[in-house]
Amino acid sequence: MKKGVVDNRLYGGIEAGGTKFMCMIASSPNDVFASARFPTTVPEETLECSLAFFQDHSRKYPISALGIASFGPLDLDPESPTYGYITTTPKLQWSNTDITRKLKTGLNVPVVINTDVNAAALAEYIWGGEQKFDPLLYITIGTGIGGGCIVRGKPIHGLIHPEMGHLRIPQNREEDPFEGICPYHRNCFEGLASGPAMQARWGLPAEQLPDDHPAWDLEAFYIASALVNLILSFSPRRIVLGGGVMSQFSLFSKIRTRVKELLAGYLYPPAILDQLENIIIPAVLKDKSGVLGAIALAMCHFESFPCPD
Amino acid sequence: MKKGVVDNRLYGGIEAGGTKFMCMIASSPNDVFASARFPTTVPEETLECSLAFFQDHSRKYPISALGIASFGPLDLDPESPTYGYITTTPKLQWSNTDITRKLKTGLNVPVVINTDVNAAALAEYIWGGEQKFDPLLYITIGTGIGGGCIVRGKPIHGLIHPEMGHLRIPQNREEDPFEGICPYHRNCFEGLASGPAMQARWGLPAEQLPDDHPAWDLEAFYIASALVNLILSFSPRRIVLGGGVMSQFSLFSKIRTRVKELLAGYLYPPAILDQLENIIIPAVLKDKSGVLGAIALAMCHFESFPCPD
Repeated sequence: MKKGVVDNRLYGGIEAGGTKFMCMIASSPNDVFASARFPTTVPEETLECSLAFFQDHSRKYPISALGIASFGPLDLDPESPTYGYITTTPKLQWSNTDITRKLKTGLNVPVVINTDVNAAALAEYIWGGEQKFDPLLYITIGTGIGGGCIVRGKPIHGLIHPEMGHLRIPQNREEDPFEGICPYHRNCFEGLASGPAMQARWGLPAEQLPDDHPAWDLEAFYIASALVNLILSFSPRRIVLGGGVMSQFSLFSKIRTRVKELLAGYLYPPAILDQLENIIIPAVLKDKSGVLGAIALAMCHFESFPCPD
Repeated sequence: MKKGVVDNRLYGGIEAGGTKFMCMIASSPNDVFASARFPTTVPEETLECSLAFFQDHSRKYPISALGIASFGPLDLDPESPTYGYITTTPKLQWSNTDITRKLKTGLNVPVVINTDVNAAALAEYIWGGEQKFDPLLYITIGTGIGGGCIVRGKPIHGLIHPEMGHLRIPQNREEDPFEGICPYHRNCFEGLASGPAMQARWGLPAEQLPDDHPAWDLEAFYIASALVNLILSFSPRRIVLGGGVMSQFSLFSKIRTRVKELLAGYLYPPAILDQLENIIIPAVLKDKSGVLGAIALAMCHFESFPCPD
């Protein structure tokens, strides 16, 4: 058994994203035995590729459970007849798709599903450092915006699951007349600050906007507005920001400055406001938070990771 | 022992509010043995009155623990030298006040402190019906606005505690040019929608505004905006609304209608959106949520209430 493996089980993980499926067999971030990625086409094909990956490796690396960290919205109510389905996604071919059944049947192992962001939050919580930060928020800002939260060691969901991308945040229409691109709410957080929103507003994809472009100050302002609401709601000890837009690294310090301004000395004692660089941070697991989150979900099935609950 | 008492202990509770202190000795909402209220003056005097109340009853009704449900902000970090202090309240005479020490010393019982809204949320969670709704949010809209949340049976707090009254919500300044009255953030939720904000905007105290006054539609809109953000953050199973402003009962249906409009069919399947009257509700414990929350906090010390954790 390799060093760092806490039990003798291997786990499968799938990060089911809107553009690609990441598959992995691992027992921790340091013990990855196989991985692959497949483009997200239609459910039948993509799920078949994923199934084949785990089946092909099953002799050498048999998995004890499979975690799926999926785009959503998902039905996570165990009582529901459509438990584990992707529900009303704008990605129409995936709308009302049972994403777990084919894999469960084909692999004959327990399957645990949760949102991609809840899973990423879980991975960052478990493996993001020596210390556990609770509550921990994970927010991804890319093609879409989503957020997950760990409270007392477990992802939060109630009636359905959080949809932090659609938070209502103030917009000064005199300074920024952009209408927003969310098909549901127009100028919600995602409608104002996702990658596609940046592209629609400025006429260039985010990654082509120069470092000194005013786009980044405005982007930091909207992200900070949403974070302030999340801070006031959860009082989190850590906020991990991931996703394509956040690969513009200068955003982090701009966001921290704006969060401090917007909180205006309320809430935190100044000493804590001066420590925002330890609270609002990039993903420690980098672009692997999601798929490792799927591994963590699979581990949850056996409660084989340290959990304060 | 009276029916409904689950153990033989009695508990003390104090709801420490900005205008009054409510004191109670009880073991459940149906087993209240003594209660009193004192005006909130200066700490020395008000805490002395509260201490005397419990001491006077101590022969007949000795308490096993005391819960304090306090206005804030509070220092709830057990590691902090100022644990249990009211910190930066605008109520200056109470700023930097150790609210627990005098009572702990005088009564010689364990003292458990939390925010008034976390405590009220806990009381509504435990005693608000047969079924437990988790997560459960409690929001009070009155002189100030505050919110607490129960996740997996316990109040949420991290770095400090939630301050949901200061959420940033969109305001259409063309339709509502009101500047907002929050001394920290001007037009945050509390700045736009607290009782004093209504009075400043309309020139009349909320309770004197007629039922058909446009104030109530605007008020419902702002409350709904904040609730939408909290729904998108926590995905709560129940949202309990209390406080003076919510005694305008027609607000409930207006708020539900606005929440549904603002969510715009996203998030919840329509079937759930049609059940908002079971999700957004008035306090089951009426104006006793806070002080019974204090009793619940005291019970927490002995973990003597059913808690899913």
